[in-house]
This record gives sequence, structure tokens and C-alpha cells, in this order.
Amino acid sequence: METVRVNLGSRSYDIALTHGATANLGAFVRAALPKTSSVLVVGDSNSWPHAESIQATLTRAGLRAGSAVVPAGEASKCLERLAGLYDALYELAADRSTAVVAVGGGVIGDLAGFAAATYNRGLPLVMVPTTLLSMVDSSVGGKTGINHPKGKNLIGSFHQPAGVWIDLAFLNTLPAREFISGLAEVVKYGVILDAAFFAYLESNSHAVRTRDPGALLRVVTRSCRLKADVVEQDEYERTGLRAVLNYGHTFAHAFETCGGYGTLLHGEAVSIGMECAAQLARKLGLIGDEFVSRQTKLLDALGLPTAPPTRWPADDLIAVMRRDKKAVGGQMRFILPTRLGEVKLFDDVPEPLVRTVLESAVSR
Amino acid sequence: METVRVNLGSRSYDIALTHGATANLGAFVRAALPKTSSVLVVGDSNSWPHAESIQATLTRAGLRAGSAVVPAGEASKCLERLAGLYDALYELAADRSTAVVAVGGGVIGDLAGFAAATYNRGLPLVMVPTTLLSMVDSSVGGKTGINHPKGKNLIGSFHQPAGVWIDLAFLNTLPAREFISGLAEVVKYGVILDAAFFAYLESNSHAVRTRDPGALLRVVTRSCRLKADVVEQDEYERTGLRAVLNYGHTFAHAFETCGGYGTLLHGEAVSIGMECAAQLARKLGLIGDEFVSRQTKLLDALGLPTAPPTRWPADDLIAVMRRDKKAVGGQMRFILPTRLGEVKLFDDVPEPLVRTVLESAVSR
Repeated sequence: METVRVNLGSRSYDIALTHGATANLGAFVRAALPKTSSVLVVGDSNSWPHAESIQATLTRAGLRAGSAVVPAGEASKCLERLAGLYDALYELAADRSTAVVAVGGGVIGDLAGFAAATYNRGLPLVMVPTTLLSMVDSSVGGKTGINHPKGKNLIGSFHQPAGVWIDLAFLNTLPAREFISGLAEVVKYGVILDAAFFAYLESNSHAVRTRDPGALLRVVTRSCRLKADVVEQDEYERTGLRAVLNYGHTFAHAFETCGGYGTLLHGEAVSIGMECAAQLARKLGLIGDEFVSRQTKLLDALGLPTAPPTRWPADDLIAVMRRDKKAVGGQMRFILPTRLGEVKLFDDVPEPLVRTVLESAVSR
Repeated sequence: METVRVNLGSRSYDIALTHGATANLGAFVRAALPKTSSVLVVGDSNSWPHAESIQATLTRAGLRAGSAVVPAGEASKCLERLAGLYDALYELAADRSTAVVAVGGGVIGDLAGFAAATYNRGLPLVMVPTTLLSMVDSSVGGKTGINHPKGKNLIGSFHQPAGVWIDLAFLNTLPAREFISGLAEVVKYGVILDAAFFAYLESNSHAVRTRDPGALLRVVTRSCRLKADVVEQDEYERTGLRAVLNYGHTFAHAFETCGGYGTLLHGEAVSIGMECAAQLARKLGLIGDEFVSRQTKLLDALGLPTAPPTRWPADDLIAVMRRDKKAVGGQMRFILPTRLGEVKLFDDVPEPLVRTVLESAVSR
């Protein structure tokens, strides 16, 4: 078992990386949360087989384990499903010795995490991500939340987990489209923070794409470490440092909002968003053609899309970007690369340039 | 203007105590939140006249000020009204330079505070309490939340305000029953932390009850300071110290839940709860008859009730107490006095004693 430690003072926690060892999760929860006597296991229709065996594991470890299941998909990140989890916690007679165990992808982590953040003013949370995207991104860093009909993740809070349990064997049964979608965030870490990791992905794209266990362990461990490094330095997204993680995301959120949640997987939107961001950076003269083509080539090699499936009106996309959580005073903000492994925040990008990038995105 | 400073590291803030000087609120907000350019003023039908003039004040100070109004009463602390505030924030195009200004009693502070805690993963919050109860209690300490149909404040989070603005002139128009209700928490501070303050209240009960401005300033300032002292030492209710503030509240929440929100005002329930807690402490031999009678006499002198208006079944009350947020593993926990100005946590009180206290409460 490998471990990535996230150092956040009294809120520090371990990310455990295993392969088919989930029978040991009970011991992990007991060690991370010695005072916990009961848990609510939350999953969705996709993760339910994992969630059920995890519930059994936790019961064997002496924990009173209830469960709640929500429909799979982004639409479950809503007030109604949140209220359902509150009811489930109430039925379990949850108190301060109760923890929430989120078994699933980003939707489950965000929704169950937000329920944990807000029930009884905060219950401990254990993340058990079952998708690549949630293993390398959403399970680490403490962001929880649900969607507002008008914007993604508009409602939420920072609530660090007490532990993250990653079982790479869960990736064996993940549908190809979803697995590949998760690789977008992996590529992102290379672009924004680690040129050597980017080069590793270039050289090993086939092993990664075919889920070679050794490649997976390296990719997931390195991604978690890179994200943890950033979160440790800017837990609440205040200094601006954590914003580097949003590379490609201003575009991506606009694609997801205008397309309706569910048309594009999050990672797919991020992949297209990174392509747009790189194009924008090139137009601003921050980087050259070689950067753009290396990134496009890697995304292609991993099976990721680099252009939106339909031509959404640029006006609509820009309107969403101006209301993005990361916008301030209606000004669009972009994280753009200055060289491989380094990005910076730009808040004075001329709108016509953004428009040009959006309008040429489909025809590329 | 008097100021009570709440020292919480990077989350420190000032409580400003004024009398009829709310025209200066704009400057106070500007000083506390130099980066804020827009505000959502939230009030209810009771506080609306204050909220409207505050909105005008903030506009004059150069802030873009939107507003939202919810019906008065505990029933507004629900997911539906919360969703309404999210919508209002969205309509205001709220971003990280937007603050929420809560103008009203505890319901508005809790509801608007929770919206601020969870919109965009946290907006700054300014509390402008308009009732005595919210001035001396709910505006200070960072607790925000809404009710679950089955339990009070079951959903919420800790979110410290960036500033609290108390205008004692607001108390002039407060209905007598509500003003008196707020005095229960004032008496509580004397009982749990400050015997001299308790004695001051005994000697000045008439001046306090008739809202003498000098007495009010002293009572509110001292109450805020005492609460701030506790919150500074146990911001997240983890060490057990903050639990002293729950004196009378385990009983009170049961009365409020069984009676239905709205039958008793919160302070009335707390007053009855303190009477029950004192009776329980006497039966356990922690205190003598003199303590109980001094407390009863002071509550009486201030016009507060010391017995529930109807006889709720003890079984129902005890069932609620076992599910109280402060309960652990179904064990009831009580904060009980050991002498005037000192309380301790007891988690091994025999249920039959609690039952006796509850059953004799009406007939006293």
C-alpha cells in the first residue's frame, strides 16, 4: 500500500493507494477516526456493487453501517438528493460519532461530502473514489458541493476528508469513456506543474490508456501528490495558488453549462477547455506552436476530445464564463500556460480573443 | 461606539455596539471587507423597515446592494427558503466580491448565514441583529444553519461573520414578548460564567426589563464578551468548552421540537430549560435550593416563563433529547451548574431523574 499524506495541520489526512485490498478499509477508517461507531455509506447505481461490499467490510470491522443510494449522474447534485441524504442520516440517528463514506465518482463525493459538511455542522468524511477522475481530482482537496440550476458547484463548502481510500482494481470495470475522461485531469497536472510527468505520459500513453497496473499506480499517485502540494499551500483558494488547478476549467464549465450537464463528461470538457486555453495562450504569445501541438497530440493519443461536439453560441459561453465562480466583478479569469509545467493567472484577456478561440474551436 | 473583538486568528472580527448610528454601517462594512463591491441584504417581514434603510445606507457607501425578504418565523429556516436566497445571489451575479448582510433575528442570521457559508463555497457575512436574542447570542460565534423537519439546526455549518453591527435603538420597537425572551440567554451567561453579572441582573432587573439604554448597553456588551471568550477557546465545539453555552438547551430543544417550532419563543424554551436543568442539578446534589430559587426569582422578575405551557409526554421529550446534536451514541448530555458562574458537562444522568424533572415541570 502506498500512501500520499495531505498536510493541513489539524485537518491532515492520508490517501491510501491499494489494489484489490478493500477488505482492509475497516481498519483504515478505525485508524483515521477512532471515535467513530457508525457510518452512512453513500453510492449511486454505478458504484453500488462496490458500496455494498464496502458496507459489509465496515460492518465486519464493528461499525454500524447504513446506506443510501442516489441515481447516477450529475443531476443528483441537487438540493432534493441532498435532502434525501439528510433524511438517511437522521434515520441512522447520526450523531458526532457518525461518519459519511462516499463510494463513487465525483458526483457522489461532492454530494455526500456536502451532506457531511453540513449535517450537524460537520460530520467526518471518508472518500472511496471509484472512477479515475475522482481518484486524481475530486476526492483530494476538500471541495464539496451541489449544482444550482444556473451554475455548476455554485453551492458548496470546503470540508476536508478524514481519509481517502483508493482501490485501483475499481478501475478495471470502469467504462472506457469514463476512464479516458479522467485522464484529462492527469494531463492537466503535467501541463501546470510537472513537465517530466507530462513527458512520462507522452512516452507511456499506450500503457496508461490500456490500464497497465504499474502505469496506473504511478499516474494516480503522482496526480494525488501534485494536487495535494497545491491544496497544502492554498487550502481555501485564497492566495490564488490553488487557482492553477482550474487550467482549462473556465472554458470547460461553460461547455458543460451550455451543453446541459451530461452531454460532455467533465474530463472531456476539461480536455476541450485545455485545448482552448492553449490556443488562447498562443494567441497572446505566451507559448509557441510546439506547446499546443504536444498537448493536442497527447490528448489525442489518450483518446480525449479537443473540440466541442456542437457549435454552442460564443455569446452564451462568454456569458457563463463571466458568472463563473472564479470571475471577479464580471471579469473573466484564465489560467494559461507560460511554459510546460508552469501556468499563471490572467484576468485581462481581451474578450474578442476569447471569442475567436471559441468560434474556431469546432472547425479545427 | 463600543467594540467587542472576537479573536479567532485570520477569522477575527469586531462587534460594533451603537445606538441609532446605523448610517455608519457602510463605513463599517468597507473597513471590514475592503474588497467587497456588492451586498445582498436579507431580512424578514419584521426586520424589513431596518433592512430597507440599511440597503439605502450601503448604496450611499458605494456598494451595489440587492435585497431578499423571507417570511418571519422559524419555518423560514428550511431548504426552500435557502434555495430562494441562492436564487437571489445568482440574480445579483454574486461573486467573491459579494457579501451577505443579514438584518433580523436569529432566523435570518442562521438562514442568511448558511446561504453565505455555502454559496460559491463561502461568501463574507455581516450580521446586523435586530432582536435582543440575536444580539447577545446567535450573531456571535459563527453558527449558521437551517432546520430538518425532525430536528432544529440539524443542517448547518460554522461560518464566522466578517463583522457584527449592533444598533441598540432597534430594541425600542421590539415587541415585549420577544425582548423578554432574549433576556433568557443573558441570564444564562450569568449562571454559567459570571456570578457578578448575575448579581447585576438581580439588582437591575427593572432597568433591564424597561429597556433603560445604559442597562441595555451593559447587558449586551457583557453578554457578547462572555460568548466571545468561549467561542475563542472552542470555535468548532470540539474541546467541550463551547458546550457550556448549551446550558438549558437540551431541554429547550425538546420543548421546541415537541411543541412545534413557534409555540414557544427560543428564549422562553431556554428559560424553562434552565429551570429544568437547575432542578436536575439539585436532584443530583450538585447545587442547593438557594441556587434554584435565585435563578427562578430572576427569571420571574424579568418576565420569563419557568414551566412549559402544556404537559408534553415525557417519552416524546426524552426521545428528542437522545437525538440531540449534542448527544453521543444516544446518551443524553446535560450542562449543569455546580455553583453560580460555573457549569460542567454530565453525560451519565439517570433517565428516571430526567423523567421526574420533566413530569413535575408543569405542576410547579
